[in-house]
Amino acid sequence: MWVVPEHEIAGLMTPEAAFDAVEAVFAAMARGDARNFPVVREALGHEDALYGFKGGFDGAGMTLGLKAGGYWPNNQKHGLINHQSTVFLFDPDTGRVSAAVGGNLLTALRTAAASAVSSKYLAPEGARVLGMIGAGHQSAFQMRAAVRFGQFEKVVGWNPHPAMLSRLADTAAELGLPFEAVDLPQLGADADVIITITSAFEPLLLDGHVTGPTHIAAMGTDTKGKQELDPALVARARLFTDEVAQSVSIGEFQHASAQKTVSADDITALGQVIIGNHPGRGDAQVTIFDGTGVGLQDLAVASAVVELAKQHGKAIQVAI
Amino acid sequence: MWVVPEHEIAGLMTPEAAFDAVEAVFAAMARGDARNFPVVREALGHEDALYGFKGGFDGAGMTLGLKAGGYWPNNQKHGLINHQSTVFLFDPDTGRVSAAVGGNLLTALRTAAASAVSSKYLAPEGARVLGMIGAGHQSAFQMRAAVRFGQFEKVVGWNPHPAMLSRLADTAAELGLPFEAVDLPQLGADADVIITITSAFEPLLLDGHVTGPTHIAAMGTDTKGKQELDPALVARARLFTDEVAQSVSIGEFQHASAQKTVSADDITALGQVIIGNHPGRGDAQVTIFDGTGVGLQDLAVASAVVELAKQHGKAIQVAI
Repeated sequence: MWVVPEHEIAGLMTPEAAFDAVEAVFAAMARGDARNFPVVREALGHEDALYGFKGGFDGAGMTLGLKAGGYWPNNQKHGLINHQSTVFLFDPDTGRVSAAVGGNLLTALRTAAASAVSSKYLAPEGARVLGMIGAGHQSAFQMRAAVRFGQFEKVVGWNPHPAMLSRLADTAAELGLPFEAVDLPQLGADADVIITITSAFEPLLLDGHVTGPTHIAAMGTDTKGKQELDPALVARARLFTDEVAQSVSIGEFQHASAQKTVSADDITALGQVIIGNHPGRGDAQVTIFDGTGVGLQDLAVASAVVELAKQHGKAIQVAI
Repeated sequence: MWVVPEHEIAGLMTPEAAFDAVEAVFAAMARGDARNFPVVREALGHEDALYGFKGGFDGAGMTLGLKAGGYWPNNQKHGLINHQSTVFLFDPDTGRVSAAVGGNLLTALRTAAASAVSSKYLAPEGARVLGMIGAGHQSAFQMRAAVRFGQFEKVVGWNPHPAMLSRLADTAAELGLPFEAVDLPQLGADADVIITITSAFEPLLLDGHVTGPTHIAAMGTDTKGKQELDPALVARARLFTDEVAQSVSIGEFQHASAQKTVSADDITALGQVIIGNHPGRGDAQVTIFDGTGVGLQDLAVASAVVELAKQHGKAIQVAI
């Protein structure tokens, strides 16, 4: 078994490797070569923790395994971040475990990569202004991936707690781009691509805020009850996601789906656009990608980082 | 993370440690301190493999994690056994992975321990003859545990393929007990405790075979369609299991349940007997324990072996 410790991931994994891995696995899902297994997610009744497993098998990439871990909201007292996960890969030919990989940074990178892949295929022509809604830990990863794979010239941002906007300003500065803190109506008017990455439980971005051709990557909603977008905005947009069944149950589209203004048939897996089965944006004014997060993304980036770790002599081999 | 390789388990784990761990976790389940998570089990469409996860949390023993792996029927060409699994333990206080443990031998030991625990609580007074139905790989583990924790003076055995009976004879000899190959009517008449450990898909032990006070540990049926016992025998017996919901869906009791001669209300979790909430055998002639196999058993024995490995300097510490 190869072990790649969490502290090695930052020095090994590149946004390009994450982007390529996520794009490839979305395509494999669309071709029917890869599928996610049912998600297990359990409240432990201990430390208010949520724990579970997201597994899958990619028969094209020959990647099998799961991400295990969850959300421990009291981890600060241990000097640890609240989201803790580990990815385990298995040899699809024999069932033997082949790798254990720290999953914390990988989760942020694969989530940012999914949003960037959606922008590659769905952003309006000539998109130059990036709008960020949310300024938590993940927002910096999202902005970096969006800027790396787009042609943005400016970032505008909003956050429920204005004090945290400095993270967006700092990240934009790091990327050499001007940043402006704006209100939501201005953000919706100015931005060509909007990334929402909050833990909100009510709509933040309203239908009336969004004007002109816009692509929205809705990355925050991954649980029943969470919500970032006005269902009326969802109802008038062209809809894409990583996994349709998940988007209408735990993703952003759960709300429009509950209101019956949107059904699963109205939603396209992004992989279908990647493999050329669906035109993507077409003549739509607004496109939305609902990034719910699937196990195959985790396996894809973990598999990529194991290869990089082996090449750089950073993978530890352990008998098991 | 502590790693305990498969090849170290045999030198570390004792039948006593497995017995104690399984008995304790059955009790914790009955007290409501421990529960199993939904089982994921998927046909991969590659190498005819079945792969999945069995997880759980024991808030009394503070054991959290999962066993991952499955059944790879073509593994012989790789020089490996067909059942391959690995157990991963997590720190319930933080969500960080704490151990990775080879799960192949542990699975055999925890299955044998469950059957031995059932006999401790359910075998008729003065049980002296052990009946073995099945002579595959697991049968030796079953016989060893039964003899270690019982007071048997003789073993009788039967197998669908008589050529394999030498395994039972050899194991009985290793344990210093006489062995006799018998037909099923004689086995049912002679044995006080019967262990069934086959991969059968039809009843082997019929109602008419079993006479006198008898305890049956039905350990082979863990999948829809598998079957070892006559449903009429099940219908007249007092019924116990590791997890009731599993026994009527994938365990031996699925068939009597489908015939409506038995319902979930007729089945008692063995843990209820262990903690003194249920009298156990009482005045029943025949008791049956349906050992379906739950994730918490795997976590319990893995946790025990990690402690033993640390004590003996056999656990490998790896940063992750």
